[in-house]
Amino acid sequence: MNIRQLIEKTRSYRRFDSKYKIETDTLVSLVDLARHSASGANRQPLKYILINDTEKKKLVFQCLAWAGYLTTWEGPDPEERPSAYIIILGDKEISDTFGIDPGIAAQSIMLGATEEGLGGCMIASVKKEKLRGILEIPLQYEILLVLALGKPVEKVVLETIDKNDVKYWRDEKRVHHVPKRPLEEIILSK
Amino acid sequence: MNIRQLIEKTRSYRRFDSKYKIETDTLVSLVDLARHSASGANRQPLKYILINDTEKKKLVFQCLAWAGYLTTWEGPDPEERPSAYIIILGDKEISDTFGIDPGIAAQSIMLGATEEGLGGCMIASVKKEKLRGILEIPLQYEILLVLALGKPVEKVVLETIDKNDVKYWRDEKRVHHVPKRPLEEIILSK
Repeated sequence: MNIRQLIEKTRSYRRFDSKYKIETDTLVSLVDLARHSASGANRQPLKYILINDTEKKKLVFQCLAWAGYLTTWEGPDPEERPSAYIIILGDKEISDTFGIDPGIAAQSIMLGATEEGLGGCMIASVKKEKLRGILEIPLQYEILLVLALGKPVEKVVLETIDKNDVKYWRDEKRVHHVPKRPLEEIILSK
Repeated sequence: MNIRQLIEKTRSYRRFDSKYKIETDTLVSLVDLARHSASGANRQPLKYILINDTEKKKLVFQCLAWAGYLTTWEGPDPEERPSAYIIILGDKEISDTFGIDPGIAAQSIMLGATEEGLGGCMIASVKKEKLRGILEIPLQYEILLVLALGKPVEKVVLETIDKNDVKYWRDEKRVHHVPKRPLEEIILSK
């Protein structure tokens, strides 16, 4: 796959085959992609917690909000939950701010996941203090993002945006539709 | 190239062959990679200005700070300056905050650039109000980031970090060395 194919295939997936197992080594290799990515002033303040243990996954799941626009959907049923999570933290002993590093790291990890035949979702809507308590994350680390990863079982289709409405929707076949702004709208001048 | 090779090759480059020309279509196709990437709550608040015109490039260059740790280097000489810039803006009529979107977009663009045989640098240290004035960027748009792009003429080598010192350095052959934290340091638990 070239980068265009890889990026087009890297959609936000929220339903997975929960029986699928992601090995720790796979998670480590994904973090290694983030490690090799750019970091503001090369400070590299991001730290990672890898979760693929059944009990811990249950605890992390309780801290996540899913698909804000699908108001009647509470999130994936037990058989469609993620196989693993990568929690991205900012080490405040290294830097007070984390700039664009979390986005860079998350994108590298998600592209790597796609190449592995996986998929997932970058979740910023996290009950952070609950997660901190459950995993006993020291205050030195700011909780920035949770990446949910698994073997996707849903189809995601891109649509052209209509009347500035960015809300994604699910059709009767549970296909997930995501409206995207066209190039003409996002390039102001060239 | 697989994603690992692509990410490993995507280093921050600051010296380019300024004679090399990057076509507008190439810049548009790079923005299209960002367009296909994830966006928080699918709001897609990022907008882009593409610069490859000689006069405008000179103006943009004046607004950028280069390689903070190379204190005796003022930035690239005229013959080693970027061939193009992509300015990433946040549209405040769409969202007040831009979350991790700029990092995701910048990483997609830089990976695409590498695949095109190009390279560049994500520059957050920008004289924003000067740039706003020069390019007459309306206040509706927050200036988030400038991506400098070109045909790299420098060699960049990754090193293992020593004593927590994140400063990159240039050796007598002008090879650029970048210390990276090892996996053991950035993965807190697995």
